[in-house]
Amino acid sequence: MQFHLNGFRTGNPAVAQASDRDPAFSRPDSLPDEVDVLIIGCGPAGLTLAAQLAAFPEIRTRIVDQKDGPLQMGQADGIACRTMEMFHAFGFAEQVLKEAYWVNETSFWKPHAVERERIVRHGRVQDVEDGLSEFPHVILSQARVHDFYLEAMRNAPSRLEPHYARRLLDLATEPGAGSSHPVTARLERLDPSHAGQIEMVKARYVVGCDGARSVVRKSIGRSLHGDAANHAWGVMDVLAVTDFPDIRLKALIQSANEGTIVLIPREGGYLVRIYVELDKLNENERVGSRNITIEYLIAAVQRILHPYAIEVKEVAWWSVYEIGQRLCEKFDDVPEEQVAERLPRIFIAGDACHTHSPKAGQGMNVSMQDSFNLGWKLASVLQGSSPPELLHTYSAERQSIAGELIDFDREWAKMLSAPLKAADDPSSEGVEPAEVQDYFVKHGRYTAGTATRYAPSLLTGDSSHQQLARGFAVGARFHSAPVIRLADARPVHLGHVAKADGRWRLFAFAGAEDQASPTGRIGALCDFLAESSHSPARKYTRQHDDIDALVDIRAILQRGHRDLDLPSMHALLLPRKGRHGLRDYEKVFCPDLSGGQDIFDLRGIDREAGCLIVVRPDQYVAQVLPLDAHDRISAFFDSFMIPPTEIARQPGPGSANQVQPASPSRALSEKAEP
Amino acid sequence: MQFHLNGFRTGNPAVAQASDRDPAFSRPDSLPDEVDVLIIGCGPAGLTLAAQLAAFPEIRTRIVDQKDGPLQMGQADGIACRTMEMFHAFGFAEQVLKEAYWVNETSFWKPHAVERERIVRHGRVQDVEDGLSEFPHVILSQARVHDFYLEAMRNAPSRLEPHYARRLLDLATEPGAGSSHPVTARLERLDPSHAGQIEMVKARYVVGCDGARSVVRKSIGRSLHGDAANHAWGVMDVLAVTDFPDIRLKALIQSANEGTIVLIPREGGYLVRIYVELDKLNENERVGSRNITIEYLIAAVQRILHPYAIEVKEVAWWSVYEIGQRLCEKFDDVPEEQVAERLPRIFIAGDACHTHSPKAGQGMNVSMQDSFNLGWKLASVLQGSSPPELLHTYSAERQSIAGELIDFDREWAKMLSAPLKAADDPSSEGVEPAEVQDYFVKHGRYTAGTATRYAPSLLTGDSSHQQLARGFAVGARFHSAPVIRLADARPVHLGHVAKADGRWRLFAFAGAEDQASPTGRIGALCDFLAESSHSPARKYTRQHDDIDALVDIRAILQRGHRDLDLPSMHALLLPRKGRHGLRDYEKVFCPDLSGGQDIFDLRGIDREAGCLIVVRPDQYVAQVLPLDAHDRISAFFDSFMIPPTEIARQPGPGSANQVQPASPSRALSEKAEP
Repeated sequence: MQFHLNGFRTGNPAVAQASDRDPAFSRPDSLPDEVDVLIIGCGPAGLTLAAQLAAFPEIRTRIVDQKDGPLQMGQADGIACRTMEMFHAFGFAEQVLKEAYWVNETSFWKPHAVERERIVRHGRVQDVEDGLSEFPHVILSQARVHDFYLEAMRNAPSRLEPHYARRLLDLATEPGAGSSHPVTARLERLDPSHAGQIEMVKARYVVGCDGARSVVRKSIGRSLHGDAANHAWGVMDVLAVTDFPDIRLKALIQSANEGTIVLIPREGGYLVRIYVELDKLNENERVGSRNITIEYLIAAVQRILHPYAIEVKEVAWWSVYEIGQRLCEKFDDVPEEQVAERLPRIFIAGDACHTHSPKAGQGMNVSMQDSFNLGWKLASVLQGSSPPELLHTYSAERQSIAGELIDFDREWAKMLSAPLKAADDPSSEGVEPAEVQDYFVKHGRYTAGTATRYAPSLLTGDSSHQQLARGFAVGARFHSAPVIRLADARPVHLGHVAKADGRWRLFAFAGAEDQASPTGRIGALCDFLAESSHSPARKYTRQHDDIDALVDIRAILQRGHRDLDLPSMHALLLPRKGRHGLRDYEKVFCPDLSGGQDIFDLRGIDREAGCLIVVRPDQYVAQVLPLDAHDRISAFFDSFMIPPTEIARQPGPGSANQVQPASPSRALSEKAEP
Repeated sequence: MQFHLNGFRTGNPAVAQASDRDPAFSRPDSLPDEVDVLIIGCGPAGLTLAAQLAAFPEIRTRIVDQKDGPLQMGQADGIACRTMEMFHAFGFAEQVLKEAYWVNETSFWKPHAVERERIVRHGRVQDVEDGLSEFPHVILSQARVHDFYLEAMRNAPSRLEPHYARRLLDLATEPGAGSSHPVTARLERLDPSHAGQIEMVKARYVVGCDGARSVVRKSIGRSLHGDAANHAWGVMDVLAVTDFPDIRLKALIQSANEGTIVLIPREGGYLVRIYVELDKLNENERVGSRNITIEYLIAAVQRILHPYAIEVKEVAWWSVYEIGQRLCEKFDDVPEEQVAERLPRIFIAGDACHTHSPKAGQGMNVSMQDSFNLGWKLASVLQGSSPPELLHTYSAERQSIAGELIDFDREWAKMLSAPLKAADDPSSEGVEPAEVQDYFVKHGRYTAGTATRYAPSLLTGDSSHQQLARGFAVGARFHSAPVIRLADARPVHLGHVAKADGRWRLFAFAGAEDQASPTGRIGALCDFLAESSHSPARKYTRQHDDIDALVDIRAILQRGHRDLDLPSMHALLLPRKGRHGLRDYEKVFCPDLSGGQDIFDLRGIDREAGCLIVVRPDQYVAQVLPLDAHDRISAFFDSFMIPPTEIARQPGPGSANQVQPASPSRALSEKAEP
């Protein structure tokens, strides 16, 4: 963590200095008449977006929800490795690691070959392959994830809090480009003291994170398409006593005739979640009509687990889901054929765009990645750093990811629901349990959330220089690796320099012998970034901001940290920042050999040439380039950024050099005795 | 973390269910007339004790301080590895790791051989040897350490909060054994609205954590003895710009003629602490009489750092200390010659007992270990589990540790203050800079806090079976190592099962082939603990408590976790606990081979015989015994424990099976759609 840049402050460094940019904050009970972004829905997608935008207090954001307060329990619980990486950027990965259940291994159970009525373990695999991410796959109540986001919002400069007990009635959009706040939301208050009151909020942008029955989606005339019939699932969080040996392992249990369950241990050491597959519903049939009870679900679990017994002592939460694989054709309000002439104003994210079974554990994760993708783009446009056309890339990028998810989920669900091959007849219909395990292993990267790869576009380069860094696939998330920070010799994860702060990061991997002195290729790159009129850092960074406020360069050298001379490095790698002009000492890294392989080997960097990795604010690799491809760096940023002079704005507190009241001066006469 | 044992609860699991045992909590403004423990002083020693006792809400604890609120800045900042291990037991090590500066390396600077007026680096060493602790040596403001303790107290069942703005005037003790609350404290309120009001509080025990000028110490007629003259130190936390290359490394800088500084980078990436040694004061001279200014200190630093420049941009805090090496002869109110017939009622801890220079970074660390040593003993006596004679061990153990500290500090301070040997005259008076570095390295274990070793006593066994576990020295802290938890295949640190909950832990390392089935030696040990009338778990655990509430056994097996059969293990290793009788799955561990060496190798366990390590509630190794030394286990616990029937008390919420209101029953009809 870096803090005290603009003067020493006491207290919790995670609590940012409050901004006075948004006077509506002083009236937390009522919504302002006008906002920049109105988020509908306090689910994982909505809260990710709110937490991202809360870092920019010059952007007036509000988030509303129908419920009268924070979520207390239930619902999603799987947190993929990729999501943990994002949580780290938001500053709460450590807390999640501490509280969560860690999915270390997954076991597979099938009917005994002869005594078909009893289950036997037929496999046990590591849940996540080694080295796929620095974070494990974990399980934690969605309610706690919400809590952490709410705390991040509360600690942000804008001190953002949700406005609860508001139901969106409808949205209206003014046609044409005349209005700065063209979308009008009509909201009904639901709390007893204001019940029935209508609030009208005009917004520059509205984002619907309002679930599978999204009102926002309906308001833009879109719907979910896919299977007509739904799968029904029972799910319960229980405290139970059992002799089933794998009760603390994630287990996929397929019985001969009683169905399939997915068992997922939960946080705290005692709780367990069990998904029970129910029959496929007929078209238009609702699961409620079947009057499924918790006793019914428990009995099903008991039959499937035979010969093991399970006695449920307490049901913390249970539900019956009905889910079909459905997808929205586009995630904003601009019809495909009007993309060239119209700008999006309304977006949808998460379950509002895609629904699928809980079996792959992807729902909450993909939803949060949706709005993490959208958040920095909205911020960039609202700060005047990018033209609004950038916002077209949200639907373009995320809709195809959701399509892949639906396809994966359909296949995985089919495999889990298929009848098992008869043990004595290999030619019979059905699936082999071993095939299920193989499929699970094969798709481990997908379920870990690390397989997402954006196609070449405005924001994603091609693979023409991929050979310079084979382990940093263009379009995929930046895959962190251990390094040593030069100035303080601290072992850190390189990817953890990426915070959810809207900044672009340039990771410059030095070629052999390049020690980042002003005369080498790293030095030339720094010269270009610091001095050239074509440098994105010079063209697009706002006047009062620090040099790294928009484009943050980090150098990774090949020599050991004791063999390097810090003061001889290019000044851009020891930049002076903040109101005191203090040096930032966290820009240069060296290999960490403690694990046997250094980052150059782990990520397949060309040791002779080195390379430059351009990373988006949402942690995805935009470009892999030669270190001296200065023109291509310029051209890339020029394609979606605009100089700040075009929009007269004050420097924003989201940047490193935020304008802050001076710290109270320290009493120079203070003396103390221990 | 384990939670939900007595039923599912929503919210932050770090917040324990509030106890209704202490009705005074509802009147936070005033002190009760009677308390079990009154702690004087909210420094590190006082807060460690308060946080420990807050886990036991049946013990009425109060803590008072002269200040009107929590510490905001300044003072101690070094946190040794051993202290981090204790912080983990209190549940906040992760937060400290996240915020703190990590001391990875220490550099040493001396005068150039020829150009004596400029300094050159002559050495650079790893600050902590590999494998010494799973935690690094870190630097964090004492104010933040206080914050974390205050949060731990607030989250504990007793919701303990300090009572600020109270000055202890004096203590009076009723002679004889007639009174249950024999110590009366007279406190003066200092806040404007109550200024001058006197409160009288009767206490069973009073602990003075009230610093070098301790009123508690004076009240028991004790004083600090040692050097008559003080050393004066200047210290400042500054934001500065410098070209000194090691500004982000801990650095010991000895100039030829301008003196010595110790430079310690601080949390946040920019702040740095600099200690400047001033002259030795004459007897009875006060440093205030010298009118030392911050400008004077800065100028001294600038001269010492030559040829490097440093420009101070902001002084966050500064102070001038005067410190002598002084020690109190005993840490309680019982004269040495009366130990056999009198019981202690008043204790002192921390700076009240020992003062020394800040150079070794030991003050805050040793002080916290003082009261961590005292806390569980007070709890055990007040819960009726131990006779009050146990409390004699506090002074006996900690006074000799403090004596070692004073000796170390004297030698280290002398070395730092000594003139440097002239470069051209090896026979000249003074110290070689290389000697300083050697001394630093040689005493690394001491400064890391891991060298503490209690002598054989009531609570500490002899070394007769040390060869069974050469890496777990009897009397030293339990040195954690990585293992895999069997039930969920999770890599964990074995030592992290130790929480600050007052429990004893038995680590049973299995001999070869012992798989913890009921027939092996681990099984026999479990039989003894669970069934024998001589078992401490049976004799001393309170009636309604879980079987592991007082003596918590964990088994570490030699086989890999995939080769073991969990259900075949002894029932004591899968104990049923809490109001639902849920199984605890966190008792059995296996080697973690990912680091190359497993725990049996790392800690020198006799692989053939196995062994039993008995660990105190403050994480120190009390005994190393053969697995079948059941009699010695009995005899050990019998020497300082008493059966709970002797004192009629209700089961305490500090134990695992606390009596709690039943969770609200879950709505079994709840259904939800995603």
